[in-house]
Amino acid sequence: MSWWKILLGVLGGAVLLAVGLLIGHFGITKTKTINPEWVEELSQDVDEAFIKEFMKEVDNKKIEEHLKELSKKPHMATTTGDEELVKLILARWNHAEYGLDDAKQERYNVYLSFPDKNKPNTVKVLTDNGQNPFTCRLTEANVTPDQEDPEVVQPYAAYAPSGNPKGKLVYANQGKLSDFQYLADQSITLNGTIAIVRYGGAGRAAKAINGAKFGVVGIIVYTDPKDINDGLAERNQTYPYSWYMPESGVERGSYSEDFGDLLTPYYPAKDYTYRIKKSEINGIPPIPTQPIGFEDAKTLICQLAGPVAPQSWQGSLGCPYNLGPGFISSGKFNNSDVQVNVYNYDEIKPSANVMGIIRGSVEPDRYVMYGNHRDSWVHGAIDPSSGTAVMLEITRVLGTKLKQGKWRPRRSIIFGSWGAEEFGLIGSTEFAEDYYSKLRDRTAAYINVDISVFANATLRAQGTPPVQDVIFTAAKQVQTPASSALSVYENWIRYANRFSTLYQKTIPQLGTLGAGSDYAPFLHYLGISCMDISYTYDRNKTSARIYPAYHTAFDTFDYAAKFIDPGFTSHQTVARTAGNVLLRLSDSLILPLGPLDYWETLDSYYNTAESTFGSTLTSKGISLAPLKAAVEQFKKASEALKKTIDELKADNERPLSVRMINDQIMLLERAFINHYAFPEKRYYSHVLWASRSSSVVTFPGLADAYARASASNLEDDWDLVRKHLTIVIYAVTNAASTLETAASI
Amino acid sequence: MSWWKILLGVLGGAVLLAVGLLIGHFGITKTKTINPEWVEELSQDVDEAFIKEFMKEVDNKKIEEHLKELSKKPHMATTTGDEELVKLILARWNHAEYGLDDAKQERYNVYLSFPDKNKPNTVKVLTDNGQNPFTCRLTEANVTPDQEDPEVVQPYAAYAPSGNPKGKLVYANQGKLSDFQYLADQSITLNGTIAIVRYGGAGRAAKAINGAKFGVVGIIVYTDPKDINDGLAERNQTYPYSWYMPESGVERGSYSEDFGDLLTPYYPAKDYTYRIKKSEINGIPPIPTQPIGFEDAKTLICQLAGPVAPQSWQGSLGCPYNLGPGFISSGKFNNSDVQVNVYNYDEIKPSANVMGIIRGSVEPDRYVMYGNHRDSWVHGAIDPSSGTAVMLEITRVLGTKLKQGKWRPRRSIIFGSWGAEEFGLIGSTEFAEDYYSKLRDRTAAYINVDISVFANATLRAQGTPPVQDVIFTAAKQVQTPASSALSVYENWIRYANRFSTLYQKTIPQLGTLGAGSDYAPFLHYLGISCMDISYTYDRNKTSARIYPAYHTAFDTFDYAAKFIDPGFTSHQTVARTAGNVLLRLSDSLILPLGPLDYWETLDSYYNTAESTFGSTLTSKGISLAPLKAAVEQFKKASEALKKTIDELKADNERPLSVRMINDQIMLLERAFINHYAFPEKRYYSHVLWASRSSSVVTFPGLADAYARASASNLEDDWDLVRKHLTIVIYAVTNAASTLETAASI
Repeated sequence: MSWWKILLGVLGGAVLLAVGLLIGHFGITKTKTINPEWVEELSQDVDEAFIKEFMKEVDNKKIEEHLKELSKKPHMATTTGDEELVKLILARWNHAEYGLDDAKQERYNVYLSFPDKNKPNTVKVLTDNGQNPFTCRLTEANVTPDQEDPEVVQPYAAYAPSGNPKGKLVYANQGKLSDFQYLADQSITLNGTIAIVRYGGAGRAAKAINGAKFGVVGIIVYTDPKDINDGLAERNQTYPYSWYMPESGVERGSYSEDFGDLLTPYYPAKDYTYRIKKSEINGIPPIPTQPIGFEDAKTLICQLAGPVAPQSWQGSLGCPYNLGPGFISSGKFNNSDVQVNVYNYDEIKPSANVMGIIRGSVEPDRYVMYGNHRDSWVHGAIDPSSGTAVMLEITRVLGTKLKQGKWRPRRSIIFGSWGAEEFGLIGSTEFAEDYYSKLRDRTAAYINVDISVFANATLRAQGTPPVQDVIFTAAKQVQTPASSALSVYENWIRYANRFSTLYQKTIPQLGTLGAGSDYAPFLHYLGISCMDISYTYDRNKTSARIYPAYHTAFDTFDYAAKFIDPGFTSHQTVARTAGNVLLRLSDSLILPLGPLDYWETLDSYYNTAESTFGSTLTSKGISLAPLKAAVEQFKKASEALKKTIDELKADNERPLSVRMINDQIMLLERAFINHYAFPEKRYYSHVLWASRSSSVVTFPGLADAYARASASNLEDDWDLVRKHLTIVIYAVTNAASTLETAASI
Repeated sequence: MSWWKILLGVLGGAVLLAVGLLIGHFGITKTKTINPEWVEELSQDVDEAFIKEFMKEVDNKKIEEHLKELSKKPHMATTTGDEELVKLILARWNHAEYGLDDAKQERYNVYLSFPDKNKPNTVKVLTDNGQNPFTCRLTEANVTPDQEDPEVVQPYAAYAPSGNPKGKLVYANQGKLSDFQYLADQSITLNGTIAIVRYGGAGRAAKAINGAKFGVVGIIVYTDPKDINDGLAERNQTYPYSWYMPESGVERGSYSEDFGDLLTPYYPAKDYTYRIKKSEINGIPPIPTQPIGFEDAKTLICQLAGPVAPQSWQGSLGCPYNLGPGFISSGKFNNSDVQVNVYNYDEIKPSANVMGIIRGSVEPDRYVMYGNHRDSWVHGAIDPSSGTAVMLEITRVLGTKLKQGKWRPRRSIIFGSWGAEEFGLIGSTEFAEDYYSKLRDRTAAYINVDISVFANATLRAQGTPPVQDVIFTAAKQVQTPASSALSVYENWIRYANRFSTLYQKTIPQLGTLGAGSDYAPFLHYLGISCMDISYTYDRNKTSARIYPAYHTAFDTFDYAAKFIDPGFTSHQTVARTAGNVLLRLSDSLILPLGPLDYWETLDSYYNTAESTFGSTLTSKGISLAPLKAAVEQFKKASEALKKTIDELKADNERPLSVRMINDQIMLLERAFINHYAFPEKRYYSHVLWASRSSSVVTFPGLADAYARASASNLEDDWDLVRKHLTIVIYAVTNAASTLETAASI
């Protein structure tokens, strides 16, 4: 072959190759535009595999270790024990291998109340001639080594005033207003008496406030074995032989009706903050008050003279309960008085919250909060350390993944270890006040796990309706401690369920939130969707008011390990469930909160109002029709939003549409906030969940106003009904409007 | 060549071509990822060329046409004239060629007050024996054909009660508390008297409220030529010969201190809404009150007996003003009484807002609002139609672009034509209440243009500090009516300027917002960044309280065209400026609001508090140091945010970062809202801009509490100072926190 032929062949081949290259590169269209990496990140949804991995790594042995450490010493708010836990939690959250992005403590100077170590509170029987035949015990008996510690605080009623009132003893059942009224109706002299009352039925402070209205000068509170021990009172029937409260056990507690720092309502208790006068504090006992154990209560009550108390007032002390006043003349205390000596003092002390954060990758300005208090009354193994142990396990597993670079949430996660909850949700309330604007505008949800395990029968979840579905989803993915074949959801539905008109089937019963733990300021004041998660009782097995060691010196690691959750698998189950919920809230593209779920509540509230109040309201010229219309508007709007979300899920390319919808979902709960709705109820601004005195399960302001008006039949009271109806319609309309198409008028 | 060689060549070539194609298509990486189209849309910034085009198309002739149409008939709230304008505006905004995306009317049933057509209010002189030597005129003189209309409402004091009080006349200057106190100090008997007072110095209602405290039984209000006419009072010196008020002119007005519907505070006045009792309304005259013209006032005042009034009380009626009580014995009214006969009635009537919307393309759930009221007292050419004409011109130009598919804003624009503003900002307040949640969470800014042209000397802008810069930017791009070589900015700075420590140069003076127009509910109740834009006076040329035809029958198209803005070029200038601002707010990628600008106000307020109150506060143990620290924290946070924004501007690929920052900017103003700060001041919740009685230009709550405490020196009053200091520090801290890095604790 000639050289030129070869050259021609080579050249021709090169040209053909080049033409091919050019056509191939430019001529054949790649039909898809390529999204840059950040776009993929923006549209990343929750990672189911990661959730599975998280749940697998939640370790019951580790939880046991956390709990042992946390409950080693008494850690009442601001004591040495509390301060040591501040350090412990900071060390965990700042740990190089399993810590969070950042952690710090933040302190508030809060108004607290303590008994005087040098001058213990006493309850004494005093005879006419000044003899003292009996004094109630000052401390609880030590029944296990776990309990022993010089820092165990004497049982007392926090915020009860000091004083030494003396008088004839009366038995006033639960200290409700109706209880004192009953005594007065029986012509029992109350003026100048000391009333002994049992826990339950009325708030702690209410017992003293009610009594004082009838001239009672001192209050003794005790826990009846009927209410806490399923009637059992013998020493060998109680802890350490069972979970029941020993006879010397005393429930401590805050005797304040309001929550938050009492001197700085609506403002964080910082150095700069103005404090109201102590005389301006409402909702605390006006008279000295002291709690005692049922052994001592028995000594007093079983000697009471006077008529026998009604059947429903009788308890399990093993004697008939008489009303008094004073002791039977045939008994050892004949004609004696009882004296309540209270030496409580108050002090403004710095209390720490410990805050931890994991920064969100895509939406760092959206917060999912998770919290529990840190302070206890004594060792507090269950209250609150069972919750803190769960929180520390969740942060250990997530912190590890974070430090290993294996995970970062879409939204920021903020953990809070609150201080001084036992004195009235103080740490969480001060935090909520301090960061009001930021939290209000940015928080998607708050998860509270306080006491994580009351008992090991079933999950208990309380929350506002939109959190229901995400808890269901999580509960279906977690196995019960008892059986790997049984999901938490399947187990739960056996214990607590209801038929849902929305789901058109039976679903687990989500409880409603009161103000019993740190979710209260977030729900009632800020209007953030909240939930509280725990494991709890089989109510067929116990009618105890609460687990029997609650707020006593017996709430120890030993108690927890032997009687509440041997093996700590219920703790593990709660950690898995709450952690699963947390991850879904922080990582899902669309916030897993269900606006439509609110409709069912609104509809049920409306129906109850209509069936219970409707005809009377009509006779007063008050129509519920606009409320019905508002509820319908809400339904329509939430259904339309649901449809929009379903359509959007098919389209990853709309990061701002996703944000827009998430804002609607997040801010829905805020639309029910009205700071003018309940001027007399501090912090209560949520029109649906504010406290309610009426037993009718409907809009609380309407229910209470109706109760008042139908009792008084005053026109001014009917006007208040009209006003509260307006408040409700307005809130529902605002909420509907939040869910409607954003750009409409 | 053999066939196989040819075949080989062809095959070889084909293989080479194929190899080339494959390598070219798959082997050579296209190095750039391609942003999909929606990404470009997300990062689209404001279009300067479009703004120029908009400004060019704003037409003074069209504005003149709009104004002529709008002011053709009297259009007091809820009258036929008002309803016709509702239809007119709806027709414009729904127009196929230049309308908006959507427009509708929304009605509220609001509490209004009118004079009785069949029983006109009168002010009479009555002698001892029942003679009536003089009655003030019932209506204003008709001096131009424009004025004549059977629907012209008689001058009256809206919300003044009906009644027929009679008594000796006294002259009480401006009806301030100090004015009545002065009379009392001079031993002038006030009990049972009728007081004549001039407009100015105190609010309309305050004059009657103050007088009643001293036993005054009726109030006559007039406008002194000194205050409105630069002293000129002769017929040939006033309209139609000049812009000055004719002698028969009477300023009408709402005599209510509160704004919003008076029967439904905090709730929209819908069918479902509870209404308070009329007896519960505060802030309206407790005694009959009637306004009159200065011709009639002269007849009364120049006959007054008693000591001569102080120099500062003297006006331009052409006689010495005596204090009374009663008339000089030598005069025609010797010993006569004056009787004020008021027959006002109240009525709940449906008043319409007209709402229009242009939907946002990228962030439809972010609102930029623009509004003005529609109702006038009489023909209202200037108040409010000069503003409505400007609004209609802006919507005409933007609507045209929209319908032509040439433009759509990034954010949604909501236009509001408010009803019943003259009775107390009612339409806007009911709207703000009705959509509280939505507006609070989504509104970036509210632009108010009420009276667009008071006079044609210079731009006047009032607003919260963050709106300053965007108004400057717009003002630099608009030419003055007088000269194409002079920008509105350059002209403005000549009339009103200050040295800015932040800008480190002299800048135009942005005024502060009170509660004089419809921005009030948006600013004070919702905490939305607001501004009010107009053209105004050369204060070297007039000291008139306001343009002289204000709220009189002389505020006609003829008056506007002859004396306020011949050629309507000042209207055009305002339309260009306000429209420019509107487009920047709706289309800019980063919201053009300056958080750092707030620092200068905070710093100045702090410095004033420190220099004015500092040493006294220190002596009371009150430290301003935490306030200083909060202001510093705000400065640091706003500087850091500015830096973040500057960095972000270089990076188009972060739509969620842009949104996050815009949320911080938008919600900054909200952080100053505290619904608990001023419980006694309805709607006033903005800690920086609430009404202030003290003349010290600093935080209003602090200034007023200080004034009270330093006067009384009561410890409770000093506690109120402490409380208001806490409120201020808390607000500034919250605001700073809103600007700080989102994911921090």
